[in-house]
Amino acid sequence: MASVARITTISSRSDVSFEDAVKQGIARASETLRGVEGAWVKDHVVNIRDGAITSWQVTLEVTFVLDDSGHPVDASAD
Amino acid sequence: MASVARITTISSRSDVSFEDAVKQGIARASETLRGVEGAWVKDHVVNIRDGAITSWQVTLEVTFVLDDSGHPVDASAD
Amino acid sequence: MASVARITTISSRSDVSFEDAVKQGIARASETLRGVEGAWVKDHVVNIRDGAITSWQVTLEVTFVLDDSGHPVDASAD
Amino acid sequence: MASVARITTISSRSDVSFEDAVKQGIARASETLRGVEGAWVKDHVVNIRDGAITSWQVTLEVTFVLDDSGHPVDASAD
Amino acid sequence: MASVARITTISSRSDVSFEDAVKQGIARASETLRGVEGAWVKDHVVNIRDGAITSWQVTLEVTFVLDDSGHPVDASAD
Amino acid sequence: MASVARITTISSRSDVSFEDAVKQGIARASETLRGVEGAWVKDHVVNIRDGAITSWQVTLEVTFVLDDSGHPVDASAD
Amino acid sequence: MASVARITTISSRSDVSFEDAVKQGIARASETLRGVEGAWVKDHVVNIRDGAITSWQVTLEVTFVLDDSGHPVDASAD
Amino acid sequence: MASVARITTISSRSDVSFEDAVKQGIARASETLRGVEGAWVKDHVVNIRDGAITSWQVTLEVTFVLDDSGHPVDASAD
Amino acid sequence: MASVARITTISSRSDVSFEDAVKQGIARASETLRGVEGAWVKDHVVNIRDGAITSWQVTLEVTFVLDDSGHPVDASAD
Amino acid sequence: MASVARITTISSRSDVSFEDAVKQGIARASETLRGVEGAWVKDHVVNIRDGAITSWQVTLEVTFVLDDSGHPVDASAD
Amino acid sequence: MASVARITTISSRSDVSFEDAVKQGIARASETLRGVEGAWVKDHVVNIRDGAITSWQVTLEVTFVLDDSGHPVDASAD
Amino acid sequence: MASVARITTISSRSDVSFEDAVKQGIARASETLRGVEGAWVKDHVVNIRDGAITSWQVTLEVTFVLDDSGHPVDASAD
Repeated sequence: MASVARITTISSRSDVSFEDAVKQGIARASETLRGVEGAWVKDHVVNIRDGAITSWQVTLEVTFVLDDSGHPVDASAD
Repeated sequence: MASVARITTISSRSDVSFEDAVKQGIARASETLRGVEGAWVKDHVVNIRDGAITSWQVTLEVTFVLDDSGHPVDASAD
Repeated sequence: MASVARITTISSRSDVSFEDAVKQGIARASETLRGVEGAWVKDHVVNIRDGAITSWQVTLEVTFVLDDSGHPVDASAD
Repeated sequence: MASVARITTISSRSDVSFEDAVKQGIARASETLRGVEGAWVKDHVVNIRDGAITSWQVTLEVTFVLDDSGHPVDASAD
Repeated sequence: MASVARITTISSRSDVSFEDAVKQGIARASETLRGVEGAWVKDHVVNIRDGAITSWQVTLEVTFVLDDSGHPVDASAD
Repeated sequence: MASVARITTISSRSDVSFEDAVKQGIARASETLRGVEGAWVKDHVVNIRDGAITSWQVTLEVTFVLDDSGHPVDASAD
Repeated sequence: MASVARITTISSRSDVSFEDAVKQGIARASETLRGVEGAWVKDHVVNIRDGAITSWQVTLEVTFVLDDSGHPVDASAD
Repeated sequence: MASVARITTISSRSDVSFEDAVKQGIARASETLRGVEGAWVKDHVVNIRDGAITSWQVTLEVTFVLDDSGHPVDASAD
Repeated sequence: MASVARITTISSRSDVSFEDAVKQGIARASETLRGVEGAWVKDHVVNIRDGAITSWQVTLEVTFVLDDSGHPVDASAD
Repeated sequence: MASVARITTISSRSDVSFEDAVKQGIARASETLRGVEGAWVKDHVVNIRDGAITSWQVTLEVTFVLDDSGHPVDASAD
Repeated sequence: MASVARITTISSRSDVSFEDAVKQGIARASETLRGVEGAWVKDHVVNIRDGAITSWQVTLEVTFVLDDSGHPVDASAD
Repeated sequence: MASVARITTISSRSDVSFEDAVKQGIARASETLRGVEGAWVKDHVVNIRDGAITSWQVTLEVTFVLDDSGHPVDASAD
């Protein structure tokens, strides 16, 4: 039996920390996608103004399995 | 005249072989997408339990052309 | 406050130049997506027949922010 | 609760096919290691003599979990 | 005078944070190895179920010096 | 109108956490440079003695815009 | 005594399988070159039409030793 | 039916632009090779003297199919 | 006789084209540095607003030789 | 007949030269391992104090074949 | 307590050997910078005329700690 | 005026040292090619038997300019 998943790339930004950015990105992806299984943190970046870090940003490669109908719940977040 | 294609990443897993995983992944992608033209096999992985290979898994970067309306047939597999 | 964007990969081809291919790719992506913010030109390729360049082709990683509803305008180009 | 695994690199060679080389490598690793979970096929190489392929060779990054005692069964294959 | 060290790869997973996963991995490696000097965090991954992060996982390349006898304390974690 | 920025690489080390190392590195860079806009965290490393993590170290690629005179404030941190 | 080899890149395509593509590529290279010793499979790609795989394609980096005269047998395949 | 192509690397330099360098390189390759199908622009470099750009240089990986006899037209450009 | 050069990274942005961005970046670097010899275009990016490209941006690794005194003319652009 | 080798990573440091570091690393690995066949020099680093090079350091990926019993001679250097 | 270092890239060329090029590069960097701690040899290149090697060239990523005042001794080599 | 060069890959092996392998490879390439300008040392490998280094091997990417007729002197080394 074969099984197929998709991998999509998102960028998520938090004003708290990298780990908060990961959590926010996963939470946002899970609102519109079923079957999110994991994510690889591809990049860590900070944005800065006047010497202060204004946001912590991560790029995530998110994997989610396609359901039986072959459709993720909401294509808009696909 | 310009022409535009999209590249999407899927992961496909077979209990037979890597080439079966490639075939299954392409078959699954072609159910919902028109204009699939090719795929690059980015990674080959095996999953193992009790010393036996339980699945052969590939990551594919699939290219498909956008049709005239600019819409793939089914956004859910997009 | 967190903010989330998506990164999608397209391939665009022009018979004029690489920069025209970039423009065409961005124009096409912007027809169906709101919030396109930027693109990284990942690869430059030329296609050739009978010693002449028939098209200039670029691969673009396009970033677009998700709107408040968390939906891009048209999932088909997602 | 934390969990720790190890990743070791082996090279395996078969005179039949790449997939046989993967199977042989996994079989050999599983003789001396408990808890082998998966392997990434990092490289595919063929060796050639007099125009004929004499062996199909793969490099594998093998992951195995450490057991409760923190010891793999046989350190020699570690 | 020459000095020789070894580099081994481990994967460590915590249900708290990436930094806890690093700490747990180093603690586990130090139980069986003398002379651990440092580690490079090669990858950051999160595992997810039902929209929640179930574990924070890092891959570490751990460097440890070989002692005078040329033996790490416990080969099993080697 | 053209605009030009510079990218410089620093390594920063904290005895608290990776994020503290990022903050310390940015703070240090901002003492001598005007116009720091962002930083990419290129590598994460831990230094270890007697089984304990003694410092958390990051390599940062810091981007800063050149001011009108084309001079960063203090070349020493350039 | 020094020994020198050359490394040349070919792309080979089969309608059967990746391994058949490797065999065909090696057979073709060996028709015109003496001393072929091995090949690294750099990339695996499939070409697709109407949802079916039309060819399995590999890129090979082929190594061959130069003979005593320093000439491969047939420069045309060089 | 198998089909085999070769990939050769050239560097081409123009005093006009990167795209002129690509055109010149392709024109030069096509003088001595039949069946040139495409090229990947691997690198873009500028050479500079006294603050002025003296040449625009590209590295190209050129693909050409081998003809029926298995010989490119002119081995010298091979 | 040894000779030493330095390599510095800049990012340059034009509202006209990538090649204009390269020219602007080189012009800017040459105002403050003597002995600029060449530059590698490491990345090509476009910035976009409301579906239109607002700037063409390149990252350049610029090489310049150190003069006899070992000092570039103006350290601020160093 | 299948054959399996292992690849282990060591770091070796000499106060003489890079090539001495390679020799020392291989000598050290060969004390405890049978069947060492080759090594790839992955990195070259120098350590410096007060403007003088204090050591020449290489990272080596060492390949050794497993003997019939499937055991390297001394697991401690494994 | 945090500590910050900088990493700068130089290219050094000798007519003797790669190791002489490394030594010359480090000597030159140490004339103007305090606190040079190490260097990674990123690339090895030879330049050739009339079949003879005219120079051995290395690219070095040099790390140096910033002193208490946060200033390297001479910004010009920075 | 455009100028075109070719880049070819060779592997050269010496029983003395890496630098001797570079010299031998360049000497061998220069026997059959005019216009060799430089080479990048892409990889350093040692071959080992019975604990002793039997050869020092380098992979070289050799650049040579094409002469006016567009023909290298001897295609066989091409």
